[in-house]
Amino acid sequence: MKKAVIALGGNALGQGLGDGRDAMKRAAEGIADILEDGWDVLIVHGNGPQVGALLRAMELLEKSGENPGRATLSDCVAMSQGYIGNELQSALLQELRRRGLRREVATLLTGVEVDAEDTAFADPCKPVGMHVDAQQAYRLACERGYAMREEPLRGWRRVVPSPKPQKICECEIIRRFVDAGVTLICGGGGGIPVMCDEEGLLHPVDAVVDKDLVAARLAIDTDADVLLILTAVEGVYANYGQEDQHLLREIPLEKARGMCEVQGLSAGSMLPKVQAAVDFAAQGGQAVIAALGQAREALQGRCGTRIGGDMTIN
Amino acid sequence: MKKAVIALGGNALGQGLGDGRDAMKRAAEGIADILEDGWDVLIVHGNGPQVGALLRAMELLEKSGENPGRATLSDCVAMSQGYIGNELQSALLQELRRRGLRREVATLLTGVEVDAEDTAFADPCKPVGMHVDAQQAYRLACERGYAMREEPLRGWRRVVPSPKPQKICECEIIRRFVDAGVTLICGGGGGIPVMCDEEGLLHPVDAVVDKDLVAARLAIDTDADVLLILTAVEGVYANYGQEDQHLLREIPLEKARGMCEVQGLSAGSMLPKVQAAVDFAAQGGQAVIAALGQAREALQGRCGTRIGGDMTIN
Repeated sequence: MKKAVIALGGNALGQGLGDGRDAMKRAAEGIADILEDGWDVLIVHGNGPQVGALLRAMELLEKSGENPGRATLSDCVAMSQGYIGNELQSALLQELRRRGLRREVATLLTGVEVDAEDTAFADPCKPVGMHVDAQQAYRLACERGYAMREEPLRGWRRVVPSPKPQKICECEIIRRFVDAGVTLICGGGGGIPVMCDEEGLLHPVDAVVDKDLVAARLAIDTDADVLLILTAVEGVYANYGQEDQHLLREIPLEKARGMCEVQGLSAGSMLPKVQAAVDFAAQGGQAVIAALGQAREALQGRCGTRIGGDMTIN
Repeated sequence: MKKAVIALGGNALGQGLGDGRDAMKRAAEGIADILEDGWDVLIVHGNGPQVGALLRAMELLEKSGENPGRATLSDCVAMSQGYIGNELQSALLQELRRRGLRREVATLLTGVEVDAEDTAFADPCKPVGMHVDAQQAYRLACERGYAMREEPLRGWRRVVPSPKPQKICECEIIRRFVDAGVTLICGGGGGIPVMCDEEGLLHPVDAVVDKDLVAARLAIDTDADVLLILTAVEGVYANYGQEDQHLLREIPLEKARGMCEVQGLSAGSMLPKVQAAVDFAAQGGQAVIAALGQAREALQGRCGTRIGGDMTIN
């Protein structure tokens, strides 16, 4: 059976907590299409809006004085894996049942090891949590050592490093799952980042790992046939936002690599997707970037932007 | 290799969110002792304090108007599985590394199926969330259909049903994990309760399933040798709290069954533990109720209260 790793944006799963049921159902339909076509599937989801709401909730809880501790960013990522995993798994099982398909679905908590030497730690740039005013920003920087950055007109916001994923902690287990035909939700939010100390002990680290890069790592480690990156647009556009914009049906690996190097993609959120596609394609895999609503067609080679692999379409 | 299912109280893992690191470390040491002795282990944890804090945080988030939805009790249980699972897994992996033991550890999101005909639905009695005044209680009852109950001197509190676990949704997968030697954290907080509708679709239900009963169910379904229920006291006492109180080193199955029927155990929290022990012992298994700090000794038959199985000790 062919194996696909699917990366799904957190925005496709709701805009906060407890509002995602319809969105999860749509995502589940797309995944069920692929399972119906006979693929083995591994699902990596984002968690931007959900972890944002969790961070805010933890902030409010802390202010209330009713909680003895303080939940970290890692804790919130773990919570978001539980929340999204459960909702998505539940929606997918319902959809499979409606179609009379029998497939096991499970959600595995996933950690991701990052490297202390990663240059991202010198330049934290991934914003997390709420906007605050300058005074609060100063206090958070002093009291907690948060890196704070000003966003014009919106206030200050905490930024954390976004290092590259070096290793998926549960990689061996995930591989066994997938080989047993279980449809697995894992690596949610890019995984819970951990770092190794001198004694070889893994410790949580306040960082965010890009979920598309984690999906590429998983696709490589599980010998997947295809990495399918689902997003809000139909694929990678040339001249995006201009009058002569057009969808690229395929991008040769070397060209895609070049796009990442010059950061020439106008849509900020497209860069990590192309980078993830390049990572996987460089190992001989085939990556497709496509719209959530066209998941099945994308795997059939009829939609989206293909990078690497078989270049016969178009 | 012998197989143990360990049930661990949520109170042994902190009193809220982000405060549990030391407690998790102690719990991890107890579990590592058992792994060191060569047992295969499956861990079921409670989540009382953690899910309470999450419910409160979600309430505060809702009031802030900054979240588009409303997280349900099921959502919070799922979050607590993520949060506790991650912290406990992390603490256990560190402890194993310190001892030079190589064991895989993983956390699986777990659902639990309950029966719509369960009499618990007619009598919701498990308190969840914060205390509110009579006016707020009335509003919650009207607007959300919550069952509210007055607690003398403390105010009103939401109560939810606590039905019996009928089936662990991920049972087959869990069995494969354990048979592969993975130390698995699952069934956290008693699992995320779901109920089957007429079409065979599983839906989340606002209820709480007792984690000790879920641990017994898992012990039966995975053919475990021992169900080890860890708690704050050394075992089951006769005449608990009185001058002539004494620890019962073993309770014959029939007597334990009788204890459950007459609800004659003075400590309110001991009843479900004895019931869980009875459930497992009735299937031929051996259950031990013991203190968290004596986990290893309890499995060696040197501590705690034994129900069912080999009655040669004492």
